[in-house]
Amino acid sequence: MTKSPPRLFVNCSLTPDSLISLQNSQIHYLKNVLRLQPGALVSLFNGRDGEWSGSLAMDLNLISVKVEKLQRPQPDSSGPGLLFAPIKKGPMEVLSQKATELGVSILLPTITDFTDVTRSNYDRVRAIAVEAAEQCDRLNVPLIEPPKKLIERLQVWPENTKLLFAAESGLAKPIDAALRDVKDKNILMDWVLAVGPAGGFSPAEHEMLRGLSYAIPVGLGPRLLKAETAAIAALSCWQSILGDWENRPIDRNGE
Amino acid sequence: MTKSPPRLFVNCSLTPDSLISLQNSQIHYLKNVLRLQPGALVSLFNGRDGEWSGSLAMDLNLISVKVEKLQRPQPDSSGPGLLFAPIKKGPMEVLSQKATELGVSILLPTITDFTDVTRSNYDRVRAIAVEAAEQCDRLNVPLIEPPKKLIERLQVWPENTKLLFAAESGLAKPIDAALRDVKDKNILMDWVLAVGPAGGFSPAEHEMLRGLSYAIPVGLGPRLLKAETAAIAALSCWQSILGDWENRPIDRNGE
Repeated sequence: MTKSPPRLFVNCSLTPDSLISLQNSQIHYLKNVLRLQPGALVSLFNGRDGEWSGSLAMDLNLISVKVEKLQRPQPDSSGPGLLFAPIKKGPMEVLSQKATELGVSILLPTITDFTDVTRSNYDRVRAIAVEAAEQCDRLNVPLIEPPKKLIERLQVWPENTKLLFAAESGLAKPIDAALRDVKDKNILMDWVLAVGPAGGFSPAEHEMLRGLSYAIPVGLGPRLLKAETAAIAALSCWQSILGDWENRPIDRNGE
Repeated sequence: MTKSPPRLFVNCSLTPDSLISLQNSQIHYLKNVLRLQPGALVSLFNGRDGEWSGSLAMDLNLISVKVEKLQRPQPDSSGPGLLFAPIKKGPMEVLSQKATELGVSILLPTITDFTDVTRSNYDRVRAIAVEAAEQCDRLNVPLIEPPKKLIERLQVWPENTKLLFAAESGLAKPIDAALRDVKDKNILMDWVLAVGPAGGFSPAEHEMLRGLSYAIPVGLGPRLLKAETAAIAALSCWQSILGDWENRPIDRNGE
């Protein structure tokens, strides 16, 4: 298999012939892990300007990338948001990585009645999302909102946005049937998928969510899924039915 | 929320009034973590006899469970198998846990051309599967086969069993379309879902797999998924379309 050039997420604008300085961790990775030499090919993306090829320029210990050619334009499409209750460090990292691979557009950490994790390292959550975006061929990195209470999120709910929430109890259509109903109606809208913490949403939250015109309770089967498993499963089903899974990975060998 | 009694997986037969001795780790959990007292309610399952309620019997430091009443019969249904290339410790533990929650029936670690992990701790993989089964309300624990080369697995392929494999390159239907085709045909068969290691299946393996009458290549979208993410995503899609996700979790509060 041909080795693709390393992909790096950068914050600055990408225009032909500009020189992009890298972060220390990126320099360490290119120089000491991959042992790249000056002139080596890398790919750059910033979430706005598409994917660009560039070449490494080294001056003593200073490493930068000279931007060369647009490889892929920035796509319009974006995946659903994910509303979730903060969970422990390990599972939160799994969630950030997998949700990024599965095309989540925004992470919405949300304090619910049964949330028992009060502090999370969102810099770390973001670093994992950046790394996952670099590795999975995404052209952007999911946004991460600061944590907020569930009631506060619902008070400023964006227009034309459905909330699909995993309901372990009470009436709920299986997620496949619920998503297919929407697909058949062929209405364009934005989506947020929501999962509760261990123990799910509280009875009061269930009542509140079920009273919202834009919320759809869905079932994820008879087994009790961990919060991050439910999030990954819901994202997978959403992408396979309403998302971009008709598309194939880029064939880098064919380039 | 009412706290459900702890669920324990045991290896022995479950019959009314029998006395089940527990493993040290289970005793530690019940006594020192949950601080249960004699007479406390627990649930037991062994993968064969359904789920039984029982009560703790303590004699000095010896803790056993007196089996009392059948709560749920053993279900017939079983999920698909999962063929995967051994991966590093952390991702392998994520895979074992999530695949168990998602109802996998058997884990088939399989050495492929691009597999670069040569030693894995399958006792640990199994311990994680047991814990996940206890927590997610399953009534059995997935089997774990010893690792084998891909070609050897294919040489003794079971009858009437489809192999759905994640193909990052070449022609492949999106997984949703592929699974729906089969559902529409309404044919009963067994399933194994297969994912390659980082880098996917090799060109030679692709050719071999695509030559098999029982194999179906499927696409999981344009992003390159890590092996364990692909496995979790494929299992989620399978369960939502062909599996048991029409069912709901047991309502333990209603009991």
